[in-house]
Order: sequence, then C-alpha cells, then structure tokens
Amino acid sequence: MTAQPTRQMHLNAFLMGVGHHEAAWRHPSTDERRLLDVRHYQELARIAERGKLDSIFFADNVAVGPRVQRHALATFEPVTLLSAIAVVTERIGLISTASTSYNEPYNLAREFASLDHISNGRAGWNIVTSGTEAEARNFGHESIPEHARRYERAGEFLDVVTALWDSWESDALVLDPAEGVFADPARVHDIDHVGERFRVHGPLNTPRGPQGRPLLVQAGSSESGKEFAAAHAEAVFTAQRSIEEAVQFYWDLKGRLERHGRTPDQVAVLPGVVPYLAETESAAIALEREFTDLISADHALGQLSRMVGIDLTGHPLDEPLPPLPDESEIEGAKSRFTLVKSLAQGEELTVRELIGKLGGGRGHRSFAGTPEQLADNLEQWFLAGAADGFNIMPPSLPGGLDLFVDHVVPILQDRGLFRREYTADTLRGHYGLDPVPTRHRTEALTR
Amino acid sequence: MTAQPTRQMHLNAFLMGVGHHEAAWRHPSTDERRLLDVRHYQELARIAERGKLDSIFFADNVAVGPRVQRHALATFEPVTLLSAIAVVTERIGLISTASTSYNEPYNLAREFASLDHISNGRAGWNIVTSGTEAEARNFGHESIPEHARRYERAGEFLDVVTALWDSWESDALVLDPAEGVFADPARVHDIDHVGERFRVHGPLNTPRGPQGRPLLVQAGSSESGKEFAAAHAEAVFTAQRSIEEAVQFYWDLKGRLERHGRTPDQVAVLPGVVPYLAETESAAIALEREFTDLISADHALGQLSRMVGIDLTGHPLDEPLPPLPDESEIEGAKSRFTLVKSLAQGEELTVRELIGKLGGGRGHRSFAGTPEQLADNLEQWFLAGAADGFNIMPPSLPGGLDLFVDHVVPILQDRGLFRREYTADTLRGHYGLDPVPTRHRTEALTR
Repeated sequence: MTAQPTRQMHLNAFLMGVGHHEAAWRHPSTDERRLLDVRHYQELARIAERGKLDSIFFADNVAVGPRVQRHALATFEPVTLLSAIAVVTERIGLISTASTSYNEPYNLAREFASLDHISNGRAGWNIVTSGTEAEARNFGHESIPEHARRYERAGEFLDVVTALWDSWESDALVLDPAEGVFADPARVHDIDHVGERFRVHGPLNTPRGPQGRPLLVQAGSSESGKEFAAAHAEAVFTAQRSIEEAVQFYWDLKGRLERHGRTPDQVAVLPGVVPYLAETESAAIALEREFTDLISADHALGQLSRMVGIDLTGHPLDEPLPPLPDESEIEGAKSRFTLVKSLAQGEELTVRELIGKLGGGRGHRSFAGTPEQLADNLEQWFLAGAADGFNIMPPSLPGGLDLFVDHVVPILQDRGLFRREYTADTLRGHYGLDPVPTRHRTEALTR
Repeated sequence: MTAQPTRQMHLNAFLMGVGHHEAAWRHPSTDERRLLDVRHYQELARIAERGKLDSIFFADNVAVGPRVQRHALATFEPVTLLSAIAVVTERIGLISTASTSYNEPYNLAREFASLDHISNGRAGWNIVTSGTEAEARNFGHESIPEHARRYERAGEFLDVVTALWDSWESDALVLDPAEGVFADPARVHDIDHVGERFRVHGPLNTPRGPQGRPLLVQAGSSESGKEFAAAHAEAVFTAQRSIEEAVQFYWDLKGRLERHGRTPDQVAVLPGVVPYLAETESAAIALEREFTDLISADHALGQLSRMVGIDLTGHPLDEPLPPLPDESEIEGAKSRFTLVKSLAQGEELTVRELIGKLGGGRGHRSFAGTPEQLADNLEQWFLAGAADGFNIMPPSLPGGLDLFVDHVVPILQDRGLFRREYTADTLRGHYGLDPVPTRHRTEALTR
C-alpha cells in the first residue's frame, strides 16, 4: 500500500443522455429509449457514487437546434432532474448548469437553495452566459447579446444571488414553539440591490442552505470567461487536447486568482476526457472506431459549421477545412474553436478525419486504451500540473461510466491518488472547501 | 353497497409546511424541524396517494414578508420539490404554483414538461399573476404591476407556453438507431411568437410530455381572474365560506365557459376547507380552539392588515375593524378580502374573534366535527352544485391529512362519491380529462 499523498484528484462525471459520443444512441450497448426515463439518470448517479466521485454534472442549453438530431440536446431541465436524483443518492455532488442571461436571479437563487436543502448540501451551479443565437431568440432577443455584455450581466447576477443566499443567517430559523418565535427577523436581511441590470429587494424566501451557497463552477475559456472564473469559480471544466496546452491553461487561470484576493488552491481545474476503455489497447481503438463509424456525415458537418463559425454544408469530406476566422471573431465556445482550428491545421486533417476526432467529445480530448493506460495518463496530467482532476465524459452511458468506476477508479485509489471513501458529506467538502459563511453577523438574538 | 353514481368528487391535498393553521408549527402534534426536510413532503404525498386523492398542491410566493413569522412562507421552490416527490409516488397528481409575472415562458414551459416526464404524466400548474408588492420588488419593479396588466401578460404567457408544449408532436421522437434518425425535424416546430410582451422562437428543448401539457389550475376570483379561469383553467381552487356563496361562484364561473368555446364539465371547482376532526364534535371544537390559542396576536394583526389593505398595527383587539375600502381598490386576493369584509361586518366580530376565525385557512372556511359530519357537509356541497370536489387544507401535517385520509375518505367511498382505486395514471386522467393533442398534425414521416 502506498502512503496517501496530500493532494487528491477530483473526479466529476459529466452525464449526457446515453453518452457523450454523438452517435452513442445508435450504439448497440445503449438503450436510446431511456433518454427520457428519470431512472436512467438516477442509475448513472448511483454508479458515480459507487465510485466515490466528487460530483455528477449536466450541461444545458435553453434551445434546441433546427434539425434536432443531437440526442442529448432535448432533455430535462437539470435542476428539476437533479432534485429527483438527490433523493436516491447520499453523498455525490449534483452540479447543474444555469444561465445568467436568461434567468431572474431571485428564481435561480431559490432553485439552487432548494436543491441544496433537498440534497443536504450537495448542490453546485455551473454558471453559463449562453453563447448561442438560438438561445437568444427564445428570450426576446433578435440576436445574441455581445460577449462582454453577457459577462457584465453575469457579474451583477452573481452579486445578486450571493447576496440572496447570504440574506438568511445560519441561525435565523429559531423554531421556538414555546415562545412562538419562528425566525429572528434581525437575522433575515433585505439585500436592496439596485444595479444597472437588476433591482432586487430580498430577502430570499428559502432559508440558508447547508453549504451556505452551492459550489460555483465555470467553463468559459475566453478572456472574460477566465477572468470571471478567477474571480468566482471553485471548479473549472475545460477542453484541453494536449498536456502542454493544459499546463498553460492551468497556470494562466491559477495566476489570475491573486488579483481577485484568492489563492490558487481555491479553484480546481478539471479538463475533460472521453475514455474508450477495453482490455487491450487495440480493442479500445476498435471500440472508438465503432462509434466513429456511426456518425452521420451530414449532421457532423452541421455541428462542425457551428464550431468554426462557417457554413460547411456540401463541403467535400476528403478535403481540408477552408481558411478559418480569427478567434476574436467568435462569440462563445472560443476554446473549442481554437482547438478545432489547431487540430485541423496542425495535423493537416481532412474534414472526414476531423469529424472522427471530434465525434466523441465535441472538442474534448478522447483517450482509447486499457484502464491502466488511462490511469497512467491521468496521473501524468495530474502530477505535471495540468489538472486538479478530470471531467469524465463516457462515450456511452451507463456502460462507459461503469467501466471507468469499476476499472480505472480502483487503480487511482491503489496509487493513493483518489479517495477510497467519502471524507465529507457536502459537495463543497468533496472539493476541500468549507461552507461559505454569511456576510452578516448579528451577535445577539433580538426579538 | 351503494351503486356508484357517475359524478365523482375530486379531492386535492393542499400541502403547506407542517399545516395550514398559522400556528401549526407551535402545536405539540407537529415537528417544526421537518419544515426543511424533503422526506416530510414525500411522506405527505404518500399519505394523499394512500387516500387515492387526485393531487397534491403547493402554493407559492416569490417573496417573504419583512417579519418572517409565517412558517410556511420560507420553503422550497415547488417544482424542484415536486420532482423529489414524483420519484417516490406512482399515481398522485403534482400541482405546482408558478408566476406568469416573474418567469420567462421558455423556462417555465420546460420545467413543467420536465416534471411531466419525470412523473409520467402527473404535472399540474397553478397559474398565478403574483399580487403582492413584496414580490414585485424582487423582480425589478418599484411597485406591483396593475391588476389588468398582469392578466394581459398572463394571457400572452399562456399563448407562448402552450405553443411551446405543442412544438413537439407526440411522435416527433423517432429513435431509429439503424437509420440514424433521432427525431423527425418536420414534427418539431418553431413557434415564432412575436407579441406585445414576448418574442420566443422555439421549439422547446424537451419533447412533448405524457399529458401533452400539465393540468392548468387557477385560483383568482377577481373579474379578470374568473375570465382567465373560464378561458384556460381545468381546475379552480377557491375560498368560499358558505354554501350559498359557493353555489353562486360555481355557476358564475361555469356560465362563463361557453363564451370561450368550452363546456361546464371542462373545469372542476374545488372550494377549500380546513378540517378539524375528532371522535366527537365537542372534541373537534376543542381542537380548533387549541390551535387558535397558539396564534400570536401581533402577527395575526399584521396578516389581517395585508388582507384588508389597512395598517392595523396597535388596533384594539376587542373592537371591530375600522371601515374597509371597496373591493375594487384591492390588488390581488380580492375574494379573500371580500370574505373577510363580509365576515367582519355580517357577524359583527371583534378583531380578536375575526383572527380566531381566520387563523386556520387565511380566509378559507374551517369545519370542526366528526369524520361523518364532515362527509355529510362535503356531500351536501357537492350535491347542491357548490363544488366538484374539495381542496383539503389540514390544519396540521401530517396528522390532519392522516385523519382525513383514514376516516373521511372511506365514508365518501362507501357513499359512492369517491373512487376506491385510481382509474387513471395521469393527473389529467384523475380529473376526467384526456391528454391534450398537439395543434400540429404532420401526416407522413418526412426525412
């Protein structure tokens, strides 16, 4: 047995329909009819919990594309879904995406406070600003609000929701039936927020949750996104294809924290990985090819078009991409654009080859090999300062998650890189963070 | 055994914290620490399901008053809560309140579609326009939007959400892995709504739920409220203190349906009742008094002030109310205002007496008696055309609901007035309604 080092990996299971691979629903190992079955998602959460993972996570868009072909885009509102999962799990963290552009802060603060109570302190919020045209058009906009404006709104939005979460002190709920004191009004505070975009009086109508506030997660990689993460995020999901790029991103992000009065250990960086696992490397590579062969070329061209900001309809599959625009011209998903561009140009790939490489994780890296090889790879990234942990994106579900939990996690545990048992009860606890104290401190009980 | 008549009662359990009585949390039969325990609400739903009730229901406000004394106002966001309840129940309907004034239609449509899937067709929406100043101030308003404007917005809001629920035809999800056809784009429709208040492009990003759309519930009693209910509602919750007033309300509402192209059987009217049940009438009356004696006079004066639109702070408890304004000057909760006014003036009550009468159900009638007496009373209302069923508001929870389910429901069943077993699987089914067909009919599968 290895002595357990202080630094431990964080592992998040990124859940999506019946798998991250865009053709997962066509693969014989999946049952596409389970897409709208809540028990499927409950089962996935229980598998992740069996592996002692830190958390599960659902991405989200508030729109569906015109062709409705990508299976996982048409699914449940994630906070509603996570509440149904919370009551059949005990320890695993529950991270939901929600938009700062298309929600009211009061409603969002309340939904996450509710989820935090219902799960006994396991709620997390992946903060997104919603970077697609289709989403903007479902919320009264002619076109997508400008990138910088969206982040300005996100900043003020966060000011409001954190003030609302702080509006109830932890001991505001007195519950003294004999004296008839339900709550101490002196410990429940108006927030009186008057800003450029929001006017919110408060207090919140849900008492303070067990964590004080949910774990704050972020996944933007633009300049504004990285600054926002440095200011607020406690975990960052990111798409990094090589260890060199990942190390650069890691230190870039960590280096920004000091300016916001934070220390590098206050944020965990989790690059995504799509694992194709089998008993031998060649079987794993064959498995990846099986998935790739199921991709519809038409659909993949449409998806690639959106990633690179150019309409590729009818583009010959066996030629390279046309010249691509500069990253500065791209709204949203900048890091993914840059990955695709460097991949296409660096490896001189045809469009067909590029589609195969991208099919698994929409720009996230994939890894085909044995459980031992994946564990080696994750350890290497972890020790090189490329990652504090990983966002595990199984190509198929539940099968791909089962494999990871049953065959990769035990190796990481044996190497002392990952917990054998949960050491905390809350999501913040899993990420090594304390509950957040309120900004208010009323010393004496006043009546 | 009585032959079962065609017309059957509908029974809804209106759930609120540890009981509807405002001092319920102080009563020795309740455990006030369960207020924020999701298992408490799961247990209540299972009790109601044991009684074969049509549905459970949560009211909601998006604000908490300045004194934070009414226990049930500080609780969970109800859709999130109902999702956690959906997965531990099988048949009972799940009705959540949500505001048309302070939500985005796209988000609300999706949350309810998600709940409808998660519950296999048991979602209901109590449509409110949010009539309090405190709520307006949490959503950017200086003061409450005018009554008529709120209902205009509610009308357009409903146009948008019903169009979104219809945007996926029932068979749009093709799920043909062999052919690689996930959904048929010809059966997923943009809604292209461009109205005075909303611009929403669609389609929804959640496929059509099992019911087509949730059961639509309404509880407004103003002119606009009744017209809105006549146009849209499938169940109406209402506060009626006497059978005469209830009969009048019932036929007033039913009479309005024809103008909207609907028939009277398309809406069920459910007056509220707060039952104090015991083995003898005198024990039941003593039980009601026990609760009344726990009311804090200060708090009750504040609550009464909000009901009548006059600040009563410091008003002598043993004198009658001062002269009250006209109903037309009241924003929101008009029927409750009128009830209080007629009660105070008709019975010449002192403020103290009025507080006692109102303590149980905030204007809803209370009934103290044996289970047999309550069953007689409900049957009388039901047969007189005062009600299609009842909104059961137990003064304490879970105890009050247990009593109703175990002692009153069997009597109603024996009399052939209420189902012995569920005859449908969905909430719409319990209310005798079919799933709603989509407005779109694409005949052939196009690819």
